[in-house]
Amino acid sequence: METSDLVTRARARVDSELGATTPVSRPTALRDSATLAGRIDHTILGATTTSDDVRRVCAEAREHSFASVCVNSRWVPLVSAELAGSGVLTCPVVGFPLGAMATVAKAAEAACAVQAGADELDMVISVGDLKEGSLRAVFDDIRAVVMASAGRPVKVIIETCLLDDEEKAIACELAARAGASYVKTSTGMSTGGATEADIRLMRGVVGDALGVKASGGIRTTQDATAMLAAGADRIGASASIAIASGVESAGTGY
Amino acid sequence: METSDLVTRARARVDSELGATTPVSRPTALRDSATLAGRIDHTILGATTTSDDVRRVCAEAREHSFASVCVNSRWVPLVSAELAGSGVLTCPVVGFPLGAMATVAKAAEAACAVQAGADELDMVISVGDLKEGSLRAVFDDIRAVVMASAGRPVKVIIETCLLDDEEKAIACELAARAGASYVKTSTGMSTGGATEADIRLMRGVVGDALGVKASGGIRTTQDATAMLAAGADRIGASASIAIASGVESAGTGY
Repeated sequence: METSDLVTRARARVDSELGATTPVSRPTALRDSATLAGRIDHTILGATTTSDDVRRVCAEAREHSFASVCVNSRWVPLVSAELAGSGVLTCPVVGFPLGAMATVAKAAEAACAVQAGADELDMVISVGDLKEGSLRAVFDDIRAVVMASAGRPVKVIIETCLLDDEEKAIACELAARAGASYVKTSTGMSTGGATEADIRLMRGVVGDALGVKASGGIRTTQDATAMLAAGADRIGASASIAIASGVESAGTGY
Repeated sequence: METSDLVTRARARVDSELGATTPVSRPTALRDSATLAGRIDHTILGATTTSDDVRRVCAEAREHSFASVCVNSRWVPLVSAELAGSGVLTCPVVGFPLGAMATVAKAAEAACAVQAGADELDMVISVGDLKEGSLRAVFDDIRAVVMASAGRPVKVIIETCLLDDEEKAIACELAARAGASYVKTSTGMSTGGATEADIRLMRGVVGDALGVKASGGIRTTQDATAMLAAGADRIGASASIAIASGVESAGTGY
């Protein structure tokens, strides 16, 4: 199906489930960096991550002027302290990576992260609710995190690898209506990562109103520039130094 | 190293990091079911789980008299309603599966789950803090969830596949001192699941004071009975019907 048809269908579906929604304001998020490095969220999300790992990643982000450091919420106070004065943003994930945490718990995680110094928050949608067509539940879940984030931009991870194209379009439409500042492809911990086709689809839904973040499996400069060419504003990666400098690196895939 | 030596070393290490800790009371958890089914936590934890999936699993748990239904925290109200009057427990996971959520957020997730009807809670430790030797942080994280669980038994997932034997022993000792009712091997979403050797080690540390739950990769009656023979009290599985009835099934590995 053409993207324009997908968008039309998704909007109609969301309208029928949610009723007419009023236009929502959304926090402005960084989208126009002139450098590739300035478009990269330098990311470390493994279960075994230690404070030394986090400090190293923060030092790298300072040195290369990446957009943000993306971590699990446990590390927000450390990241915020390490990045103080650098201009690099502190970016925790919320409800990560399954997105199946209770909405109130996601909102609490977001509020705690803001309290601890988060500048941007990357949340995972309730994929199961989307799958069963409970669009109001998906919307309310995103909206609760946006509200708890108190003016900080929220990126909404839709986990593209688990969705068909219609579900991807609906998820983006719901994120836009709920006040998200970005839609984001992937956690990097499921069955697949970002593709150029998905970036084009997501951009087709959100237009210029939201940013689009490509994440999952981006390991080289070529991967990253292909995503930007397809319409992404931001890249999530662990191989950020290699990407920004054009050097090969394995990364960890998220 | 012999288990007795591991236990001695782990206790000494915890003593030196935490100082002398006072004995803690812990909620009594079901550990003595006469049936294999009564020892199984019937588990569905995937990102794409829908309410129909959850209802099916609850119906199966009622029919086979499993110990509990284990779900992501989003599903607690539904599970609690579906299981009302059945004697089957509602068992959400907390900080799942990475364990790298902020402690306050884990405690909030636990409190929300209790409010919504949780009877038992399975939390994941902060593996990174354990890896770097921040034992006080690991302890405080578990303790916060135990307190937020307000008298409901807490099972502490140590994610054995990411730990060496000394770390496994230390994690069990910390869980015991923090008031956990069970130690549990695995999330089923990392690099490996339960082994008989790990069950023996964990039982060696906690003695008879706590339960031991084997989870991850348990798909057959033979798998389950081997774990029980090694010292486990409880089994976490999705292939629960096959396990309880002796029929082969693939399950999902958790």
